[in-house]
Amino acid sequence: MPQVLTSRFLFGPGPSNCYPEVTAALAHPVIGHLDPVFIERLDNTCEGLRTVWGTQNARTLPLSVTGSGGMEAAFVNTVDDGDVAVIAVNGLFGERMCEVARRCGANVVRVDHEWGTPIDVERVLAAHPRPKVIAAVHAETSTGVLSDIASLGQNKGDALFIVDAVTSIGGLELLADGWGIDVGYAGTQKCLGVPPGLSPFTMSVRAFERRIRNPRSWYLDVGLLGGYVGAASGSGRTYHHTPPVTMIAGLEAGLQRILAEGLDSVQARHRAAGAALQAGLQEMGLELFADEGHRLPSLTTVKVPDGVDSAAVRRHLLEHFSIEIGSGAGKYAASIWRIGMMGPNANAASVTLVLGALKEAISAA
Amino acid sequence: MPQVLTSRFLFGPGPSNCYPEVTAALAHPVIGHLDPVFIERLDNTCEGLRTVWGTQNARTLPLSVTGSGGMEAAFVNTVDDGDVAVIAVNGLFGERMCEVARRCGANVVRVDHEWGTPIDVERVLAAHPRPKVIAAVHAETSTGVLSDIASLGQNKGDALFIVDAVTSIGGLELLADGWGIDVGYAGTQKCLGVPPGLSPFTMSVRAFERRIRNPRSWYLDVGLLGGYVGAASGSGRTYHHTPPVTMIAGLEAGLQRILAEGLDSVQARHRAAGAALQAGLQEMGLELFADEGHRLPSLTTVKVPDGVDSAAVRRHLLEHFSIEIGSGAGKYAASIWRIGMMGPNANAASVTLVLGALKEAISAA
Repeated sequence: MPQVLTSRFLFGPGPSNCYPEVTAALAHPVIGHLDPVFIERLDNTCEGLRTVWGTQNARTLPLSVTGSGGMEAAFVNTVDDGDVAVIAVNGLFGERMCEVARRCGANVVRVDHEWGTPIDVERVLAAHPRPKVIAAVHAETSTGVLSDIASLGQNKGDALFIVDAVTSIGGLELLADGWGIDVGYAGTQKCLGVPPGLSPFTMSVRAFERRIRNPRSWYLDVGLLGGYVGAASGSGRTYHHTPPVTMIAGLEAGLQRILAEGLDSVQARHRAAGAALQAGLQEMGLELFADEGHRLPSLTTVKVPDGVDSAAVRRHLLEHFSIEIGSGAGKYAASIWRIGMMGPNANAASVTLVLGALKEAISAA
Repeated sequence: MPQVLTSRFLFGPGPSNCYPEVTAALAHPVIGHLDPVFIERLDNTCEGLRTVWGTQNARTLPLSVTGSGGMEAAFVNTVDDGDVAVIAVNGLFGERMCEVARRCGANVVRVDHEWGTPIDVERVLAAHPRPKVIAAVHAETSTGVLSDIASLGQNKGDALFIVDAVTSIGGLELLADGWGIDVGYAGTQKCLGVPPGLSPFTMSVRAFERRIRNPRSWYLDVGLLGGYVGAASGSGRTYHHTPPVTMIAGLEAGLQRILAEGLDSVQARHRAAGAALQAGLQEMGLELFADEGHRLPSLTTVKVPDGVDSAAVRRHLLEHFSIEIGSGAGKYAASIWRIGMMGPNANAASVTLVLGALKEAISAA
């Protein structure tokens, strides 16, 4: 079915729709990964990623995996058998971190929170006297909750601080250096407005110096990947694997678009869209899921009203309006919806459209 | 530099140019990974991959990594600490297999061959009495050599047989089931005519039953990935990670194009282009690198003539003709060239163009 040109409004938890500049870049002719044009493109991409991460880290690059692969890269390079990893869990992606860290051999100390609530910084910091790493999710895609990463990072002590920024990067304030993030990973398919397939990744010098040498993963070994992007000091560029040149062209275009609009303006656009959506949903009489004061602008969680069939509403939206919104995750699969206003979709028209369509769909379902 | 529309003839070892249907598919609107349209697309893609792999394996899917990530998936799912892995090494990618397997904890028994020669089946089979896995490269991208995978697979005994088909899949005969391949991985950017970024992967039931449970890698765990493509018996589809939907649309389009042309015709086209190129290079007085009778049609290696500056010739080709060919790999970096005729480039016009341009470039350099 290669000719299906189905066009959707992607108002789920990701992927979001792409910026038009991204779509154009994906259709450019492929070039070789050793071509001077591509080398410049990769350098530009890494530089753009530094801006959206809020970092000066030399080791800032698009990993050739999706966001979940970025999570694996974060742990496989920092923990080995018996290393203590304190992990804050307030949703599905915190859960996943525990499983990924456990597979890397870590002694996982998990700090559970009720879903829909933000991370309790004091509890996380008190969980273990001397962890090798502390890990937390900035913007929980499963619950729509934003947590205070700065407070955690600024009080991390000797630990390396790992942060999941999948649903914040490019749309929300993110200051990796200022907040003390040592290892960060993200995805491209949310606020960056680029298809899924790459993981924007950053690692501080401090973390690099304390990394696992010869980690179990060759593909995700940051010791080798530094050379791939020319970030290994003094040694130039070395071949590691063939980079996904087309996806990187798309990411470069997305970053350029965001930086041309202005990162502050893009973040303001996300805040405005999120606030308008949340106000509109409440005006419709719906109840938001995430704790007030800790709601993500980029992704809103809302409770399915009693007696309403969640799946039927989503099906109606898809079939009548070509609109995708998300179900909940885990035990909230049928009881919440997740509505994203990310990337190019973070605007007033998207808010008005999804509110109107949701109202009709609830009535019809 | 998102607007650079540099167009190249990609006659190196990959990426090759894409089929036009692929480029068109990459520019389609993004759709969600849970959209019924995408589910059908993923199913079509897996079915197309079964055809080019020559397999009925339910667990045949595009991994969300490049070819080197596929290599890692092959080993992390089959070997653990102390397991014996016999690895045939006749080029860079056999070398890489040893390193990847070692990181997975394997006791690696490597069987070295001179670069440019095919794998000696008897030596590989005699290397260890009871290996857990035997691994070999079908088409060595570093040397341009084709090895006899069928003989190895048909005599593998109790071992699981892992095969790298990065530079053969889609362009050369490949019969995973008939040849006894248990685990195969490949790339998209060679004979399939799709950009790099996915790894076509297949695993037999026999290998799945003897796989490592809870392997070190969560991202590449085939026990979880079976659910992702709906191949886990009776359990339906489960969420694992967000698939790279755009790249999968590209791969689907490439596979459909190849199957519409006819896999036999596509393979014949690759054979004809490779034979014509090799004959033409020899008529120019150049010497081929790979052993006669074991030369890949998709990728030809040729010795740089004495006194000729390899890099200067390649630069001339790029700057005057927008043609990319490859340098050699490893110790042959400066002494051989690698010329690919893959995917849409496997045709008479490409052969004539690259021969004429190379002649001019050697004179000019």
